[in-house]
Amino acid sequence: MIGEGLRLRHPRPEDQLRVLAVLDEWWGGLGGEAGSQQRALLLPRLYFQHFTTTSWLVEDADDRLVGFLIGFLSQTDTDAAYIHFVGVDPGLRRSGLARSLYQCFFDLAREHGRKRVHCITSPSNTTSLAFHTALGFLVEQGEKVVDGVWVQPDYDGPGLDRISFVRTL
Amino acid sequence: MIGEGLRLRHPRPEDQLRVLAVLDEWWGGLGGEAGSQQRALLLPRLYFQHFTTTSWLVEDADDRLVGFLIGFLSQTDTDAAYIHFVGVDPGLRRSGLARSLYQCFFDLAREHGRKRVHCITSPSNTTSLAFHTALGFLVEQGEKVVDGVWVQPDYDGPGLDRISFVRTL
Repeated sequence: MIGEGLRLRHPRPEDQLRVLAVLDEWWGGLGGEAGSQQRALLLPRLYFQHFTTTSWLVEDADDRLVGFLIGFLSQTDTDAAYIHFVGVDPGLRRSGLARSLYQCFFDLAREHGRKRVHCITSPSNTTSLAFHTALGFLVEQGEKVVDGVWVQPDYDGPGLDRISFVRTL
Repeated sequence: MIGEGLRLRHPRPEDQLRVLAVLDEWWGGLGGEAGSQQRALLLPRLYFQHFTTTSWLVEDADDRLVGFLIGFLSQTDTDAAYIHFVGVDPGLRRSGLARSLYQCFFDLAREHGRKRVHCITSPSNTTSLAFHTALGFLVEQGEKVVDGVWVQPDYDGPGLDRISFVRTL
């Protein structure tokens, strides 16, 4: 399912710094230094220690990191799985790699008996909105509508609005 | 085990904003605005949605939030549990509340067959270091020693050094 010359594996703790290192580049510096710090704080090492079996890393033939997906199984709702953070090398966008990573996660979540996958994105990230919608995610109703899309104000804290997605497995 | 007049319960999604609201006050504004944002980003709503069964909130007789513990069971290492974030109202420090919250988590982790609890703290937080040591946590060996304590440089990302603890259950 993953493209030719690419290898898929579960992450290890020491991969965290590699992932952080490519994030600024891949995100095109979105949000400046504050955005960079936000992304680092959203990916503490604990994800690379304790949620590795439901997370994926993709490397190319030169061992370069070209994609990753960090996800977990909900411990509260045994029907739910959650995708926390996904990144793909801009050179491989539109290659189907992100879609493949999501499909790998969907398969794994199904194997664990999960019936739904949740994830969120920033309202400013229109590429992400289009991607998730194309993959079959629905936008959950929020408290306000911005540019025709339901948004959850202060979802992750004051000023941290989010679009909330859910997809049936 | 929790003090008189206090109620212990598992958190709900809507508790996240309440927790964030008290954090700056309880932490005494440590780290200024950047510190405030760091704390908020370390507690995204997902913890209040998907890891509630291993997390705790404490309220007093007036429904005021006076303490919380956010923890989870490792999905990678089925012997391990992890305490992610703990806070106690400064007016209740030295009351044994933090210790009780940890004991509640230890009991729960044991019930789930876990044999070890992990957590981390910032090297500058000497109160936290003393607290964890008194509770039986050991400092894991790092790559450098700062003020006589092993520190893991760049543990959570560039410039985010941490002390790493482990305690046998």
